[in-house]
Amino acid sequence: MANEQNNFSEIIAHCKEYGYIFPSSEIYDGLSAVYDYGQNGAQLKKNIRDYWWKSMTQLHENIVGIDAAIFMHPLTWKASGHVDNFSDPMIDNKDSKKRYRVDHLIESHAEKLAFEGKKEEEFALLKSMDELLSKDDFGGLKNLIEQNKIKCEVSGTANWTDIRQFNLMFSTEFGSSVSGNEEDNKVYLRPETAQGIFVNFLNVQKTGRMKIPFGIAQTGKAFRNEIVARQFIFRMREFEQMEMQFFVKPGTEMEWYNYWKTERLKWHESLGIPAEKLRYHDHVKLAHYANAAVDIEFEFPFGFKELEGIHSRTDFDLKQHQELSKKKLQYFDNDLKEDGKPIGNYIPYVVETSVGLDRLFLTVISVAYANEKWTKEDGTEDSRVVLRIPAKIAPYKLAILPLVKKDGLPEIAKQLMNECKQSFHTFYEEKDSIGKRYRRMDAIGTPFCVTIDHQTKEDNTVTIRYRDTMMQERISLAEVKSILMEKIN
Amino acid sequence: MANEQNNFSEIIAHCKEYGYIFPSSEIYDGLSAVYDYGQNGAQLKKNIRDYWWKSMTQLHENIVGIDAAIFMHPLTWKASGHVDNFSDPMIDNKDSKKRYRVDHLIESHAEKLAFEGKKEEEFALLKSMDELLSKDDFGGLKNLIEQNKIKCEVSGTANWTDIRQFNLMFSTEFGSSVSGNEEDNKVYLRPETAQGIFVNFLNVQKTGRMKIPFGIAQTGKAFRNEIVARQFIFRMREFEQMEMQFFVKPGTEMEWYNYWKTERLKWHESLGIPAEKLRYHDHVKLAHYANAAVDIEFEFPFGFKELEGIHSRTDFDLKQHQELSKKKLQYFDNDLKEDGKPIGNYIPYVVETSVGLDRLFLTVISVAYANEKWTKEDGTEDSRVVLRIPAKIAPYKLAILPLVKKDGLPEIAKQLMNECKQSFHTFYEEKDSIGKRYRRMDAIGTPFCVTIDHQTKEDNTVTIRYRDTMMQERISLAEVKSILMEKIN
Repeated sequence: MANEQNNFSEIIAHCKEYGYIFPSSEIYDGLSAVYDYGQNGAQLKKNIRDYWWKSMTQLHENIVGIDAAIFMHPLTWKASGHVDNFSDPMIDNKDSKKRYRVDHLIESHAEKLAFEGKKEEEFALLKSMDELLSKDDFGGLKNLIEQNKIKCEVSGTANWTDIRQFNLMFSTEFGSSVSGNEEDNKVYLRPETAQGIFVNFLNVQKTGRMKIPFGIAQTGKAFRNEIVARQFIFRMREFEQMEMQFFVKPGTEMEWYNYWKTERLKWHESLGIPAEKLRYHDHVKLAHYANAAVDIEFEFPFGFKELEGIHSRTDFDLKQHQELSKKKLQYFDNDLKEDGKPIGNYIPYVVETSVGLDRLFLTVISVAYANEKWTKEDGTEDSRVVLRIPAKIAPYKLAILPLVKKDGLPEIAKQLMNECKQSFHTFYEEKDSIGKRYRRMDAIGTPFCVTIDHQTKEDNTVTIRYRDTMMQERISLAEVKSILMEKIN
Repeated sequence: MANEQNNFSEIIAHCKEYGYIFPSSEIYDGLSAVYDYGQNGAQLKKNIRDYWWKSMTQLHENIVGIDAAIFMHPLTWKASGHVDNFSDPMIDNKDSKKRYRVDHLIESHAEKLAFEGKKEEEFALLKSMDELLSKDDFGGLKNLIEQNKIKCEVSGTANWTDIRQFNLMFSTEFGSSVSGNEEDNKVYLRPETAQGIFVNFLNVQKTGRMKIPFGIAQTGKAFRNEIVARQFIFRMREFEQMEMQFFVKPGTEMEWYNYWKTERLKWHESLGIPAEKLRYHDHVKLAHYANAAVDIEFEFPFGFKELEGIHSRTDFDLKQHQELSKKKLQYFDNDLKEDGKPIGNYIPYVVETSVGLDRLFLTVISVAYANEKWTKEDGTEDSRVVLRIPAKIAPYKLAILPLVKKDGLPEIAKQLMNECKQSFHTFYEEKDSIGKRYRRMDAIGTPFCVTIDHQTKEDNTVTIRYRDTMMQERISLAEVKSILMEKIN
C-alpha cells in the first residue's frame, strides 16, 4: 500500500467534493480570501475547537474561558498599537488601479532577476529594500522601484502612486450619533482576540477569584484586510483564533514560556500530527510587546509555516490599557515575601499561546489525506482516497450500513442508529453497493462502519470495518455502542 | 421558602458579579449595545449552543450543519432584499446632532400625552403615524413631528433634518483593489446567518447527497446597526443566531411549518422553560418572503418578546439568488408522480427556525434566577441567590470541596477532581467556610457539591449537596462520578 505524496490542489478539490470547504458565496463567483465550511468541515472545525476548549478550560483548574465581542472600544486598538503600527507600505499602479504591498512587488521582481541568472542584482535589490523598509524610507523605496523599472503585471506600466501606509484593520461605523466627525463613530473589527482577554482581565480575576498564575482562554473570529491573501484557508481575511493568555508573576515568565512551549507541541502531537512535521522557529526579531517568542511550525503542502505562536508578552498590553483607561489593572498578590509581608500589587506578565483554528484544520486534513493505490491478491489494481482523521475529532464516528434495502435489515440498522446517535455523530446510508459506501466513508474520514447483513438476523452479530486498515471483523450487535464509545475516547 | 419576583436590574447585576456578562470594553466605559461573556457566561452560552447543535444535527439524520463566513459577496444582500429594504426612517436634530428612529420619537411623545391624560390626542397621533409609515410618506411624518412640536430630549429644540432611510447593515471595505469606485469594495457584515445557508444550498445538497426534505443548520454572529439598542443582551449590535433552514417540496410547506412550530416549543420546554412563560404570536402582517410566520415569545422581565421565529419563507430566497447569480438552484426529485415519471426539477420551499442565542441565554438566566428568603427552624431568617440552571447546560456540573485545608482532605479531593474533570466541568475550592462555598456555588448555578470531610477517611463516603433543594446525603466516594454522569444526562 503506497502512500502518495500529498498534493495541495488534490486536497483543495477533495475538501470541496466531500463537503469540507466551499469558496464563500461561490454562486457569485466567490469572495476573495474567504471560505465557508460545509457539512463535514463545520463538524470537524467544531470538534477541533471543542478539543482545544476542553484541554484548556476543563482540564486546567486555573484556566477559564471567556467570549468577548468582535466589536471593542476603539481605544483598545490605540492601546495595543494596532491603530499606529498594524500596517504595510502599499503602492498603487495608476493605470490598472491595482494595489501592491511594496515588499511583495520588489520581491517578485527579484525572483525574475534570479530566474534570469542575475544573482548579484537580485541580492543588491533585496538588500536595498530591507535597508529602506527598516528606515520607513518610502521616498527611497519608490526610487528603488522606478530605478529598477518595475512594472505592474496587469497594465505593464510603471506609472506608480506614492507609497502609503495601509492599515490592515477593517473598520465600520456605529450609527448612534451624528457628531459630524465620522472618526467618533469608527469601530474596528478585531484583528486579534487577545485584546478581548486583556480588557476583561480584572473582571475575570475579581469575579472568578483567580489566583496567579492563571489563564483566560478564548476562541473567536478575527479579521485582517490582507492585500495578498493566499494558500487556501492558510491566510484569510476572516479567520478564527484560539488564544490563551496566562498571567504570571513578573520574573517567572520565562519558566512559564518554556512550559507552554513544550505543552503546546505535545498537544498538537496528541491530535495525531507526526513529530517530524512539527518544529520550533524562534523569533530573532521580536515584536514590540514581547521578550521571547517562538512559532510552532507545521510542514504544510507548501512548506513549513506558522501554526501556533507562543509569546512572552511582558506587561506591555495591561500597562498600555492601564495608561489609556486610567483604570488600575493590577493584581494583589497575597503570597508572602521573605520579610513576611505580602508581595502586594503588580501588573502581571503574560505568556500567550495563539493558534489559528483554520490553520489547524488545514494541518489535520493535510496529515489525514492519502491517495492510496495497491495491488490486490488477484493481481488487479485498487485505490482509494482516505482521510485518516483521528476518531476523537472525526465529523462522523460511525456509519451504519444495511447490506440491502430489504429483508428487515434497514429496520435493525435504524434501531442501532437510534441507540447510537444519542451518544455520538452517526451516519446512516442504505444506497449503493457496500464497497462504494465504504469508499465514501473513507473519503469523508469516518473511522468505523458497521454493516447489518443476513447473518445479523441469525446470530445478532455485525461486521465492523476499520477505515485505517480496511480490516473487518464480526462483533456483537449489542456491543456496538460500547465498543465505539471506547474507541472514540 | 418564598420565591421573590424576578427583578431585571438584579439579574443584570448578578450576571456581572458572578462572571456571566460584562459590558464590552468596560475599562473604556463600555461600547453601546455590545456585551462580553465572562468565565461562567461563556461556558453557559457554549453549552446552550452545543445543545441546539446536537439536537439539530446529531439527532436528525436529515439535518447537517455548516459554518459560513460573516463576509459574503455583496450581491447576496441585493438578492435577499437587505440592500434595498433593511432600513428604518430616521431623523436628526440639527442642534444636538442626535439621531432618532422616527417611530420611536413619535411614540415617546405619545407616551407623554398619555401620561398627561390626553388619551384622544395620543390615539390620533399614533393612528396618523401608522398610516404615514405604511405609505412611506416621509414628508407627512415630518409635518406630524412639527405640528406636534416634538422636541429633541437633548437640545430641547425642534430643529429637525428631513427624514431619511438608514440601512441597518454595517459595511466595511475590502482593500484588494482601488478602482476609484469605493462601492466596488464594499462588503457587509451579515445581518442574518440564513443567507449563508441559501448560497451554499446546492453545494451541500450535492456533496452530501441530501434528499428532500432535509435541513441545513448554522450558528454564528450577525450584526445590525441598531440605533436604539436596549434591554441588556436582548437587542445588541452584535449577536449570535442559531438558524435551521428546512428544504421541502412545494405544497408541503404548511405541514412542515406546523411540525417545526410544535417541535421548537417542545425543545424550549426541554430546557426547563415553563410552558406558561412561552406563547405563540402569529404574524398578521407578513414579511415579503413569507407565507406564514409565528414567533415563540418568552415572558422576559420586561414582558413577552420574541425568542424564536418560525417562518415559511417559500422559494423567495433561492429564486432571488438563482436570478441574480444565473446559477440554477434547483433540486431534482426522483420520487415518482402518479404517471410513473419522476417529479423532476424544482426550487424547494423553505421553512426556517431562527432563535437568538443571546436571547435564549437571557431566557435561561431569567428562569433560573431566584432571590430566596426563608425562616429557619430556630426562628432566624436566611436567604440566598440561586441560579437553577438545568444540570445539562450548567457551566460547572460539580464542585468538589474539602471541608478543611488539612488532614489529607485536599489530597482526596484532588484525586476525585482528576477523576471527574476528564468527563465534565468540575470546580475545586478549598477556601472559606463550607456554608459560604455552598452559597457561591448556588450563585453561579452549580447543581451538585461534594464535600470531603473526616468521615470520608473512615468510610469512603462523601456528602452530596443538591443546589435546588439544599438537601444533603451521604454517597460512596467511588460512585461520585457515575452518579453525576447519570444526573447530567
